[in-house]
Amino acid sequence: MEEINFKKRETIEQVEESTDLAPKFDENGLIPVVTTDHSSGEVLMQGYMNEVALKKTIKIGEAVYYSRSRKALWHKGKTSGLIQVIKEIRIDDDQDCIWLKVDVKGGASCHVGYRSCFYRSVAFGSKQTEDQKLQFEEKEKVFDPKEVYENAANPTKL
Amino acid sequence: MEEINFKKRETIEQVEESTDLAPKFDENGLIPVVTTDHSSGEVLMQGYMNEVALKKTIKIGEAVYYSRSRKALWHKGKTSGLIQVIKEIRIDDDQDCIWLKVDVKGGASCHVGYRSCFYRSVAFGSKQTEDQKLQFEEKEKVFDPKEVYENAANPTKL
Repeated sequence: MEEINFKKRETIEQVEESTDLAPKFDENGLIPVVTTDHSSGEVLMQGYMNEVALKKTIKIGEAVYYSRSRKALWHKGKTSGLIQVIKEIRIDDDQDCIWLKVDVKGGASCHVGYRSCFYRSVAFGSKQTEDQKLQFEEKEKVFDPKEVYENAANPTKL
Repeated sequence: MEEINFKKRETIEQVEESTDLAPKFDENGLIPVVTTDHSSGEVLMQGYMNEVALKKTIKIGEAVYYSRSRKALWHKGKTSGLIQVIKEIRIDDDQDCIWLKVDVKGGASCHVGYRSCFYRSVAFGSKQTEDQKLQFEEKEKVFDPKEVYENAANPTKL
C-alpha cells in the first residue's frame, strides 16, 4: 500500500478552499469523527481518530478509531463482528472533523446493543417536561451485549 | 422558563439505560455536537456546547453552541441569519455527545458559504490516488461569505 502523506497546514485558503488533505489533530493528537449509516443517514456514533487511525481507515476502507478509554487503535467490529465498511469519507471546512458514511455488518453500532448510539431523545422548547426525562427512540436492542462482548470492560466512563 | 437540571452521573446503568439526562462535559467543560439536516440527513457541522449552551438550546429550540475560537456562547445564525431550528435532540449511550436534527433558515450552515461544512471528500481504499487530493462534492456556494460576514474574523485556525 502507498504511504499516505497529509499536507502541512499553511494558509486558511489552502485549508478551506483547496484540494490539499491537511487534517488538524487536537492537543491530544485526535480528530473527532461522525459516523452515519450510508442508507438511512442516521448518526450511528461519534468517535475519535489519531493520525495512524485516519491513515489506516483511508487505506483499508474500514473504520479504525482511537479508543480514548483503552488508549489504543480500535478497528471497529474486530471483537463484535460489527465492521463498518466505508462508503464515503468527508472532511469539514477547517479540516478538524471527519464524517464517515458506512455500511455496518450486522446492523448495529452501539456497544449497548442498539442500532445507533443515539437511541434516546431530549425534550426541548415547549415539549420540555419538568423532570426532563429522556425518551427511548429505539424500542429493542439489535443484539445482546453480554453475549457479544462477554467479559470485556464497558467503555462508558462516569 | 423552567430551570433545567441535569442529573448527577452515578452508575453506568443509569447513564446508558435510564431516562435520566446526565450529560458528560469534558475537561474543558464541553460536549461535542453533531448537527444534521432534518430533511436530507446530511451532516452540516460538528461543534461544541458548554452546559449553558446546552440548557439554552433545550429551552429555546434553536442551536446555541460554544465557540472555542471566540470563547463565547454562539447562537448560530445571529450574524448570518442562518438560524438552526431544532427538530430533534438526541444524546448518545454514555451521554458525552449530542445529535441535533435541524432546519436551517437560508439553507446553509458553513461559514465558507457551502450548505454543509463537509463539502469535500477523501479518496480511500482502491480509489486512493498518489497525491491524495480532496474532491469537491458541492459545486457551488449557497452564499458569499464576504457579503454575509463582512469583516468578521475567520474562525478557522491553522
